Amino acid sequence: MALILAINAGSSSLKFQLLDMPAEHLVTKGSVERIGLSDSIFTISVNGEKQQEIASISDHEVAVRILLDKLTDLKIVRSLKEIEGIGHRVVHGGEAFDDSALVTDDVIKKIDDLSELAPLHNPANLVGIRAFRDVLPNVPEVVVFDTAFHQSMENEAFLYSLPYEYYEKYGIRKYGFHGTSHKYVAYRAAELLKRPIEELRLITCHLGNGASITAVRGGKSIDTSMGFTPLAGLTMGTRSGDVDPALIPFIMDKTGMNANEVINVLNKKSGLLGLSGFSSDLRDIEKEAKRGNKRAKLAINVFVERIQKYIGSFAAKMNGVDAIIFTAGIGEHSSEVRGQVLNGLGFMGIDWDADQNKINGQETFINTDKSKVKIMVIPTNEEVMIARDTVRLSKQHQKMK
Amino acid sequence: MALILAINAGSSSLKFQLLDMPAEHLVTKGSVERIGLSDSIFTISVNGEKQQEIASISDHEVAVRILLDKLTDLKIVRSLKEIEGIGHRVVHGGEAFDDSALVTDDVIKKIDDLSELAPLHNPANLVGIRAFRDVLPNVPEVVVFDTAFHQSMENEAFLYSLPYEYYEKYGIRKYGFHGTSHKYVAYRAAELLKRPIEELRLITCHLGNGASITAVRGGKSIDTSMGFTPLAGLTMGTRSGDVDPALIPFIMDKTGMNANEVINVLNKKSGLLGLSGFSSDLRDIEKEAKRGNKRAKLAINVFVERIQKYIGSFAAKMNGVDAIIFTAGIGEHSSEVRGQVLNGLGFMGIDWDADQNKINGQETFINTDKSKVKIMVIPTNEEVMIARDTVRLSKQHQKMK
Repeated sequence: MALILAINAGSSSLKFQLLDMPAEHLVTKGSVERIGLSDSIFTISVNGEKQQEIASISDHEVAVRILLDKLTDLKIVRSLKEIEGIGHRVVHGGEAFDDSALVTDDVIKKIDDLSELAPLHNPANLVGIRAFRDVLPNVPEVVVFDTAFHQSMENEAFLYSLPYEYYEKYGIRKYGFHGTSHKYVAYRAAELLKRPIEELRLITCHLGNGASITAVRGGKSIDTSMGFTPLAGLTMGTRSGDVDPALIPFIMDKTGMNANEVINVLNKKSGLLGLSGFSSDLRDIEKEAKRGNKRAKLAINVFVERIQKYIGSFAAKMNGVDAIIFTAGIGEHSSEVRGQVLNGLGFMGIDWDADQNKINGQETFINTDKSKVKIMVIPTNEEVMIARDTVRLSKQHQKMK
Repeated sequence: MALILAINAGSSSLKFQLLDMPAEHLVTKGSVERIGLSDSIFTISVNGEKQQEIASISDHEVAVRILLDKLTDLKIVRSLKEIEGIGHRVVHGGEAFDDSALVTDDVIKKIDDLSELAPLHNPANLVGIRAFRDVLPNVPEVVVFDTAFHQSMENEAFLYSLPYEYYEKYGIRKYGFHGTSHKYVAYRAAELLKRPIEELRLITCHLGNGASITAVRGGKSIDTSMGFTPLAGLTMGTRSGDVDPALIPFIMDKTGMNANEVINVLNKKSGLLGLSGFSSDLRDIEKEAKRGNKRAKLAINVFVERIQKYIGSFAAKMNGVDAIIFTAGIGEHSSEVRGQVLNGLGFMGIDWDADQNKINGQETFINTDKSKVKIMVIPTNEEVMIARDTVRLSKQHQKMK
């Protein structure tokens, strides 16, 4: 077996998937949560069954050692030598990375330098990278960036209409996120459409607790709804998406909060949660809406309205669209949201099938034969993308040796 | 003659037009600038020729007295009794006004209460209203709001995805501006199209130093690009339009400015000025772009890109569009911007005529016969709208007497 570990490290957590490549078969997955506390939680799936242990796991390096011990103890791998590469999700690659990269000292330094743009994420991602370096120094590590896919945007898409020196001095621009997911579903859509991606105009809608929409032309991201940070764009679970920036000082003045506290409210207490008043989870909101809760209905209507407008704006940007793809939690599982979004878009030549749209959680076309635009549901798989890039770039590691 | 004075009062200025109604004929126009200083400037057009005087004009009431004296002295009117109404532009009508209103004590109080939402504008507008009340107490005054036309937006369009109580407690929502202009060109478009406005879906593009786009369905604004303040939406002369709100604390941190200072940069030093680095005036920028200035070209490309995306988003919102209307300085006079915007929108069935598009500053159709969407240039006329509403509502004044 050629096994690849796909790692997503946060400040006090580490999620993992072990994939058999190139078959892209999931061998096992799990997580370590509450790292640094006395009641850390280690979870792993063995033959589809979850095992959980509570223990004191003092730091990420200990978490990595426990994870690797478990893989052999549980006989998931015969030897750690079967692990041929480790792929890490890293949130921010700034303008330094337009592709995944093999981890070197220089790459680590660059990720560290970019911490300013992602102060909560990049340092945590680095802790995970270093922990594996210490424990498995001879196994190649690869970093896969949320931002890399969007580096193909032209400057008229990524520049804000601010004093130009803010871009030059401070790196203020649109970066975009969820790139690994948008890229995965865009390329998968081209396969399912049996057409070369070079000739396709796609709109990929990643609708989860975080949500973003990307315009993909010729296989490249040319625009996306998130911005300098993942706050911008669509209405999300707890994030406001786009608002008039002049609101920040107005809210500060009214509430006595400082600017960072206001942005925190926009990140954590807004979106579906702020509108509905009771939940950030669309499933709860859909249930309440069906019972007649007006604020729940309002939250859904706002959510849908913003998606429709972004689809319209990106269709204009590409002068048309060949396929629209829905993915992530809501995109894959909410027939209602997909239907409501598509209902308003007939003018683009979209025609969809209500029965097909009832299928959730699997690859499906939901357009009718007469629709000018293909409409697809494609479950996203960021870990497979991480594993693929890890395999591809690990070959450089072999050559370097 | 039934003469109506249309007034636009700022904190240190007062612009006026005298219109003969219902003919909508402009009798004279002019302005008083630098009110409160020793070198105030009074300007008036007499038979198409500008006359200017420098004098010390201590306040708006003095400005009004001088204006009225001039109208008789210059024999523009035989008697002030010919002035049958005074219409005032007021920036913010909040949720209190969905139409123009006859000035009463209650109306003045409401405008005053709304000053919080337009601290620079509403108080200045009120100074103008009170000055005419003092000098011409028996002439009806009418207020015409920039926001009133947009009060027809549904809550899913006007609500931000913020904690709902921010709307209830603080009035935080999208209000929209330029309403008088959007309404004027929308209704004029219906006349020129010889179709009832009730059945039309229009996108009106008011592109001046300030710029906004409105979706008008059935004669009602259903969405617009400006927001809680006139900062949001498109790239403008000096305004940034939409940016990631998380940029505010980041810029504060980098520059040491406070939140209000950052918003001031977004209002005064951004937009075309910030991108080009040398001018907020599109005419200057177009000249430099033709000479090969890259930053000038960039500023135009960003400006056009945002317009295209808003047109796309509003077409999606209305599930199609029957006509797109360009108005205001740039919309009426820049063939280049109109052409560049339309070039990217063929997928909507837009087809336009390059020769027709060369015509500037007058009512013109620039679509070809085969275009599914009509494309029009319509010079805006906010003063005529103010005069019309003043005539209409002054009749209530007669009844009240």
